[in-house]
Amino acid sequence: MKSNAMILAAHGSRLKSSNEEVAQLAAKLSQQLKQRFAQVEPAFLELSPPSIEDAIDNCVAAGHQQITVVPYFLAAGRHVKDDVPAIIAQAKQKYPDVDIELTQHLGLSTGLVDAVTGLLDSES
Amino acid sequence: MKSNAMILAAHGSRLKSSNEEVAQLAAKLSQQLKQRFAQVEPAFLELSPPSIEDAIDNCVAAGHQQITVVPYFLAAGRHVKDDVPAIIAQAKQKYPDVDIELTQHLGLSTGLVDAVTGLLDSES
Repeated sequence: MKSNAMILAAHGSRLKSSNEEVAQLAAKLSQQLKQRFAQVEPAFLELSPPSIEDAIDNCVAAGHQQITVVPYFLAAGRHVKDDVPAIIAQAKQKYPDVDIELTQHLGLSTGLVDAVTGLLDSES
Repeated sequence: MKSNAMILAAHGSRLKSSNEEVAQLAAKLSQQLKQRFAQVEPAFLELSPPSIEDAIDNCVAAGHQQITVVPYFLAAGRHVKDDVPAIIAQAKQKYPDVDIELTQHLGLSTGLVDAVTGLLDSES
């Protein structure tokens, strides 16, 4: 069986707390999906390390043969349409023997209906 | 029973397709939550009509006595911490007889784990 990793690829923020929210979600995903992924890492397009490129390098160095990159973006703007796919295309050239997959972005997940519904009894 | 409305308050984008994704999610929520909310409307902080203020005005004009505003943001940056709460505070002053509630932002929903997991077998 191939060793698999997931990268949760977020925009990144100047606010440390915001990047930590992404890291916390990656940790939860790691726990929930441990039978599917040996490793789940947060990564950021801008403004915070690790970059998506570095996260891919790290996953390859850790011996994973399959890497699934999930764009953690609500809107299909330039980042989702151009920037993240360009990074993945370069990584595929750099690592032709590694299976690097890019999923749809979060905004297209059918699970968002339930994610919003789950907020209804919270207070800001 | 009070008549309730929900406003899905997103950032807004220059890309029409991105704003349409928010409107489509609002339509899905309207369908799923029709026993709880008589109306679910998309609204945008910037870059696209309707504004959050206008959406609140419209919900009040439609006769809703309770309005739940859900910040459709992944990160708790300035928009979530300052801008949206300031709009809600002004709306409460404008409509003291309407119950206007602000939930936590999407990034804090426990449902995000499942929303990300739901993307895993998709391809971008």
